[in-house]
Amino acid sequence: MAEMTETAHGWLAPEELEAIRGRMPILYVDAVPVRVDESGAVTHVGLLLRIGPDGAVSRALVSGRVLYHERIRDALMRHLEKDLGPVALPKIPVSPQPFTVAEYFPTQDVTPYHDPRQHAVSLAYIVPVAGDCRPRQDALDLEWFTPAEAASMMVQQEMTGGQGVLLKQALAHVGRLT
Amino acid sequence: MAEMTETAHGWLAPEELEAIRGRMPILYVDAVPVRVDESGAVTHVGLLLRIGPDGAVSRALVSGRVLYHERIRDALMRHLEKDLGPVALPKIPVSPQPFTVAEYFPTQDVTPYHDPRQHAVSLAYIVPVAGDCRPRQDALDLEWFTPAEAASMMVQQEMTGGQGVLLKQALAHVGRLT
Amino acid sequence: MAEMTETAHGWLAPEELEAIRGRMPILYVDAVPVRVDESGAVTHVGLLLRIGPDGAVSRALVSGRVLYHERIRDALMRHLEKDLGPVALPKIPVSPQPFTVAEYFPTQDVTPYHDPRQHAVSLAYIVPVAGDCRPRQDALDLEWFTPAEAASMMVQQEMTGGQGVLLKQALAHVGRLT
Amino acid sequence: MAEMTETAHGWLAPEELEAIRGRMPILYVDAVPVRVDESGAVTHVGLLLRIGPDGAVSRALVSGRVLYHERIRDALMRHLEKDLGPVALPKIPVSPQPFTVAEYFPTQDVTPYHDPRQHAVSLAYIVPVAGDCRPRQDALDLEWFTPAEAASMMVQQEMTGGQGVLLKQALAHVGRLT
Repeated sequence: MAEMTETAHGWLAPEELEAIRGRMPILYVDAVPVRVDESGAVTHVGLLLRIGPDGAVSRALVSGRVLYHERIRDALMRHLEKDLGPVALPKIPVSPQPFTVAEYFPTQDVTPYHDPRQHAVSLAYIVPVAGDCRPRQDALDLEWFTPAEAASMMVQQEMTGGQGVLLKQALAHVGRLT
Repeated sequence: MAEMTETAHGWLAPEELEAIRGRMPILYVDAVPVRVDESGAVTHVGLLLRIGPDGAVSRALVSGRVLYHERIRDALMRHLEKDLGPVALPKIPVSPQPFTVAEYFPTQDVTPYHDPRQHAVSLAYIVPVAGDCRPRQDALDLEWFTPAEAASMMVQQEMTGGQGVLLKQALAHVGRLT
Repeated sequence: MAEMTETAHGWLAPEELEAIRGRMPILYVDAVPVRVDESGAVTHVGLLLRIGPDGAVSRALVSGRVLYHERIRDALMRHLEKDLGPVALPKIPVSPQPFTVAEYFPTQDVTPYHDPRQHAVSLAYIVPVAGDCRPRQDALDLEWFTPAEAASMMVQQEMTGGQGVLLKQALAHVGRLT
Repeated sequence: MAEMTETAHGWLAPEELEAIRGRMPILYVDAVPVRVDESGAVTHVGLLLRIGPDGAVSRALVSGRVLYHERIRDALMRHLEKDLGPVALPKIPVSPQPFTVAEYFPTQDVTPYHDPRQHAVSLAYIVPVAGDCRPRQDALDLEWFTPAEAASMMVQQEMTGGQGVLLKQALAHVGRLT
């Protein structure tokens, strides 16, 4: 889960955020971008191609922190625009009910999710995107996978922190995990 | 829940359907058409204005039977197109998980839902529609209501068979029942 | 999905049921029996060991038809008692919202689920059972598997009609698919 | 949402928590305790009777913060035991998927939920309790209401911060809002 630049009123300076981490669970959202056919069935899943601080290549979901006084659906919009560009036309779900909640723990194996920096609790949503996706910031590319490809060992191995598990949960939720 | 004209292969003649009713629960879908803002929040709910066989005016959700060898998402598409016209552009949900299941019983008060003709079990979905809605067939009009109007006594009294309750459940699910 | 003996008022004679199959989707429920720890986390999944009409050994979920004028939760209770015995103490979910809907088609590959006899639409629920399970009728045994075992190739291969997929969806829903 | 005493390792001193509030959304859980019949249908909802700092009597759900390195299901157990006593025998849901997410904002009318002290984001769950409930700490009593009573104007008026809305959402989710 990539760190954001925070400059506006009410946001945290990096050193403040650092101090809070380790003391409180931090609220995140995870979004699984999908392409759907005219009947709403998921045909493809979009994954960001990232290069980590150690140079390792990985694939990731759209993910980020919820800010003070920010609604969850606004956080989803902000992170989707940040990662997919301004003309992706994401369709944020009508219901605040996430398809699951991913609890990223700083220690391994408490849950399937892991984030060495912090205890992050992430509300996970599936988001159809209809427009053009132009990754920005630290993502190199966005690549679309069929459900079968997304669940394959090859793609799963390129995902970190348990996001591969979260992706399989998303596929199961839309009836496309086989 | 309005009856459909059935002529194609595999569909039932009216007398066959009649014979099955009273022997089996019949599978239905209910769709709640909604307008959403750019963040996905529901701003309006669409209700059909119908005139029943007894001349009574009522408001109704989009509703109808699932046919043999028809997927639920295809049944949703078919009933939405039948009731809202061909350019409503409904966005069928990505997940087959309904927000609730409405069990319409032929006897009153077993559940909040009632259908004197049959035991119908209906999978209920909330469906954003982005295009123009032009009701067809037996619906006179489609009218859009704010969530507060939709939950009001006036609108609730114009809904029959427990669809008012189902509408309130939909509003609750999207966080717009107050 | 095993056939039930039907004798009471309102139930269907075998020949009547046969006539309706092929004309209508038939409403089913699928239940995934689970053991949970004191915090509600799933520790084991229960699968029935069955011998099919062709002598093939298979593992199956608790599954069966919803009858005319029967509530879904009563159908769940009836099938769980039939398959797990009278002292299994199943905890039927408080919400009618299934974790998914499995559409078993008589033709292959329309969905991941398949039933050569009929088009069955099944509401799927996860049901904690706290008591002793004593399989009856055509089930030879009930065996408990860890989530990892249940998702393994070995168990998946012993499940038919797409129930292995449904089982993985259940594991994903409870956060135990890895 | 009542404040907890926090003394153990990793918890926050009151002044630390105060400093973080106003900078970050704080993660909460809300639990709606229910009594169910043998088929899992909700028959009663439990509400805590509280006296606020200003002496006002109010009714409340079980609610509280999620701590650093605490799983959501452990937070639910802790708050339920704190508010209902050690022999309430709560059945924590098997799935981490909440029935809704309540976003309590420090300013009014951003959402239906309001908490003047903070921006709290609460994952809401319905929890059947089978044992004896003996409220502790600042709750005077736990009283059981039928679904109709719980949705009535009288009970709704005794709930604050939008918890009355959350309660109606819970009733809608279990099919008991009429």
